[in-house]
Amino acid sequence: MAVADELLSNNERFAAQFHTGTALPLAPSKHLAIVACMDSRLDLFQVLGLGEGEAHIIRNAGGVVTDDVIRSLVVSQRLLGTTDILLVHHTDCGLQKISGEQFKREIEAEVGIKPPFSIETFDDPYADVRQSMGRIRTSPFLLHTAEVRGFVYEVETGRLIEVQGSSDGR
Amino acid sequence: MAVADELLSNNERFAAQFHTGTALPLAPSKHLAIVACMDSRLDLFQVLGLGEGEAHIIRNAGGVVTDDVIRSLVVSQRLLGTTDILLVHHTDCGLQKISGEQFKREIEAEVGIKPPFSIETFDDPYADVRQSMGRIRTSPFLLHTAEVRGFVYEVETGRLIEVQGSSDGR
Repeated sequence: MAVADELLSNNERFAAQFHTGTALPLAPSKHLAIVACMDSRLDLFQVLGLGEGEAHIIRNAGGVVTDDVIRSLVVSQRLLGTTDILLVHHTDCGLQKISGEQFKREIEAEVGIKPPFSIETFDDPYADVRQSMGRIRTSPFLLHTAEVRGFVYEVETGRLIEVQGSSDGR
Repeated sequence: MAVADELLSNNERFAAQFHTGTALPLAPSKHLAIVACMDSRLDLFQVLGLGEGEAHIIRNAGGVVTDDVIRSLVVSQRLLGTTDILLVHHTDCGLQKISGEQFKREIEAEVGIKPPFSIETFDDPYADVRQSMGRIRTSPFLLHTAEVRGFVYEVETGRLIEVQGSSDGR
């Protein structure tokens, strides 16, 4: 895998300039967890001006709040002291472009087994952020569900747009 | 949530310098998906010298390959053409420090409901990378499972250490 060798070589340069001896603590200093899409165009540290050690970064296809995201948030809040949650979906998402049921039928036709998970497709990223906020607010396992804010990242402009229906009523 | 306002203000500066008009394509240019831990000290773009638009970034507590990670990899490979997978766990992980069963019992005692998911704790990050590689290789839903390489990121040094038992036999 040539790409891994290239990235490893990049890492050697990174490590050579690393702040060895000033290890950051395990718990995020901003008490923040971010749930975002896996999209390759979304470099969250740059987009948010985020620094190392400040926030947990949870990412999956869509930035959708699934059971595994709840697991990660449970660890983030109960073990590592985060209290706030920020959701980031985005425009031009792959999951907007397909039918989840059709996609699953195609996989089943090829593999012989139907995927046991929802693909979590959606039509509108703003509505899907509200869906994910609802899943956070109704989870019995999280300690903190009041401070949740949701955004759509415009891949065309680099701008974050806040989703109406955030916890602060905007 | 003051932290969100601060990050939004950072985003305004980011968007002001954004390369508007040269939108990157949806499919990652390096045909790569990275599965990594949510740890706040791990800025993957910096650690790997990765550029915008090059790789999908999937992250959760531990960087563990769960069903939701398989869902994301299914979308990444079947919808968006990635072929290679890179796993990144790290030293000093929160999930090394607790017993999953004890943690779940404490949540159940407080909430009255036992979490329906495994917490996915582990003792040794190297062994846990191998565990995750095995889950990828045995998933019936992925198109590409040959090009998988696993690493442990040393938060103390900034260095990636390749895990023995990678697909290339090292």
